[in-house]
Amino acid sequence: MTIADRWLLPDGVEELLPEQAEQVEALRRKLLDLYHTWGYELVMPPLLEFTDSLLVGLGKDVDLQTFKVVDQLSGRTMGIRPDMTTQIARIDAHCLKRDGAVRLCYAGSVLHTRPKTLMASRSPIQLGAELYGDSSIDSDIEIISLMLETLRASGIANITLDLGHVSIYRALLAEAGLEEEAKQALFDALQRKSGTEINALIAAHVCQPQVASMMQALTQLNGGREVLSEAATVLAAAGEQVQLALAELGKVADSIAARMPDVNIYFDLSELRGYHYHTGLVFAALAPGLGQAVANGGRYDDVGKVFGRARPATGFSTDLKALLQLLPATAAQSHKAIAAPNSDDLALWQAIQQLRAQGERVLQTLSEQTAVAACDRQLVLEQGTWVVKPL
Amino acid sequence: MTIADRWLLPDGVEELLPEQAEQVEALRRKLLDLYHTWGYELVMPPLLEFTDSLLVGLGKDVDLQTFKVVDQLSGRTMGIRPDMTTQIARIDAHCLKRDGAVRLCYAGSVLHTRPKTLMASRSPIQLGAELYGDSSIDSDIEIISLMLETLRASGIANITLDLGHVSIYRALLAEAGLEEEAKQALFDALQRKSGTEINALIAAHVCQPQVASMMQALTQLNGGREVLSEAATVLAAAGEQVQLALAELGKVADSIAARMPDVNIYFDLSELRGYHYHTGLVFAALAPGLGQAVANGGRYDDVGKVFGRARPATGFSTDLKALLQLLPATAAQSHKAIAAPNSDDLALWQAIQQLRAQGERVLQTLSEQTAVAACDRQLVLEQGTWVVKPL
Repeated sequence: MTIADRWLLPDGVEELLPEQAEQVEALRRKLLDLYHTWGYELVMPPLLEFTDSLLVGLGKDVDLQTFKVVDQLSGRTMGIRPDMTTQIARIDAHCLKRDGAVRLCYAGSVLHTRPKTLMASRSPIQLGAELYGDSSIDSDIEIISLMLETLRASGIANITLDLGHVSIYRALLAEAGLEEEAKQALFDALQRKSGTEINALIAAHVCQPQVASMMQALTQLNGGREVLSEAATVLAAAGEQVQLALAELGKVADSIAARMPDVNIYFDLSELRGYHYHTGLVFAALAPGLGQAVANGGRYDDVGKVFGRARPATGFSTDLKALLQLLPATAAQSHKAIAAPNSDDLALWQAIQQLRAQGERVLQTLSEQTAVAACDRQLVLEQGTWVVKPL
Repeated sequence: MTIADRWLLPDGVEELLPEQAEQVEALRRKLLDLYHTWGYELVMPPLLEFTDSLLVGLGKDVDLQTFKVVDQLSGRTMGIRPDMTTQIARIDAHCLKRDGAVRLCYAGSVLHTRPKTLMASRSPIQLGAELYGDSSIDSDIEIISLMLETLRASGIANITLDLGHVSIYRALLAEAGLEEEAKQALFDALQRKSGTEINALIAAHVCQPQVASMMQALTQLNGGREVLSEAATVLAAAGEQVQLALAELGKVADSIAARMPDVNIYFDLSELRGYHYHTGLVFAALAPGLGQAVANGGRYDDVGKVFGRARPATGFSTDLKALLQLLPATAAQSHKAIAAPNSDDLALWQAIQQLRAQGERVLQTLSEQTAVAACDRQLVLEQGTWVVKPL
């Protein structure tokens, strides 16, 4: 082990040095303050939990993404959280136990065994908000609005909102009555958006011609607002659930277009992100300059059930480290520090403490003078009083 | 696995619900702002690192306290940080590479495989500050002052500062020339403060009567300021290093007593907390109501060496969750939220957004009315304008 090896960080594991750390901290505060004004209450779930409660209902992907350790006190398996959503659902179901709408927000580190995408971090700082207890589309609209406000407050422009609805695919799949194996193969092909493979699988496994043609059409249903009217025609024969989903998509798009006319709205009816736990609307925000979605979320009404209290739920999350990459360049630091001499004088200590209490940054020069570079003023003794003078 | 089991958290792993989480967040901000005014720059080291860099030089205790996982990308062992100090030392040595004094601060979760003491958390939120590049006692005084200010800013009164200096024991040990095994046995006995065992070990292993009597005397040297004059007599025959250590303890006590006359100063010359990595002054802050020290630290000049750049270093850390237990009861929340009706009206949305931008908390009532309990005002439409009225 050479010295150079020692300080090499694992791939996808970053540290934030002063300038970046201060930007992330400022953004963290700004966004948590924003969530406060929207009525969201902060919670801090633990960094690790028993896998039995942490990974419940989230599917195999998330399980594989979770670092596991053995609890030396109980012998049970614990996981370092790869995502905070189930933790928040557990808190809503078991710790708060309130009726009606509960709004919660959070910010904290999560870890992934492997990066989600080639360039993704394995140690994001997840920040998000969840709304429990209300199944109406109004709560989806509130959460989507808050997700978009999050990006706007971060200074990110040219946002695209990507809307989907897993109920459409779910309803068609139910009508097709596929075997488990075929379902999984089709799901994989859809995730990869591999058109020929999807069509081949549908042709091989779906007997009803009408359902097959609707499923094939689904992969083409992406684009602007016109997608919804196309879908109304193409999916006209589908059941009530599909019609309800299309109506919900329309309502969300209307609301967001009115509230935030500068946001581009894009529909993707075959989008199945988080399909294993999402139950309705799914959404993501895209920004120029970042390959993956910068924030995403969706409805997941069933998650609380395993904790004994099924509650409607919708929410979104983002990664402060990903947001950092998109931040507009900020103006140079306005205010430099004040240099104080190295002295035991109690009056000097009191003068320094007073300046600090006013929010000034005061560096006491120690045995050497390097602090001075960061300073534009200094404390000097004039006629028995310590006063601030230009440096 | 019953439902009740699922939400049980591992022992010593806590979550913070809204009221506590908001207190911790407020305290976190207040203390990081305090460190900013003292010239400390924020850094955010990663939650996990290769054990080769994370655990270097910290001794076996810390190794056993660290959760290990295998990196699926490199096959190497990584550890979830049990402490952030070596991470900060690595950042100073390798990432910043500045000369002269470097002041860094941090706040983040750490994990321990087992609680340090019976009642301790296994998932503390560590917060601290480190000062690199200056070996003078002035930087120890600065760090101790900042540690005490941390508690004072948190509203904690009746603080006791516990001072020790590992150089005294180290110097006597060097003069005694013990075998490794005897050294370890003596260290263990000193840690347990077991007087009879210590005396028996010294009698058995230390040949020089003068050194033996000084080592025995050490365990009695604890108490108020009088300890230093007693030590001057009892340890008069000890070498230069011991005299230097005693002089440093005196200087620190003088400075702190002048700056913060309300802090009780206590000396414990056989205190060996962190003995494996500390190299000089060690200190802890105690507060009524908490069995363990609420903050502690010390000088550790050698840590940077393994990263190729040995730099003088001193620092302290505390746990936000431990501070939370000591916080004085706060006054009830002053300002309640504003209830807004559930409506698609764009003018309502604009009125809500304006209030939120002013820092008001506005809850949009969804399909039901439970939000109202948290509100004392409401938005109502009067003559075509949305206005705030008492509820």
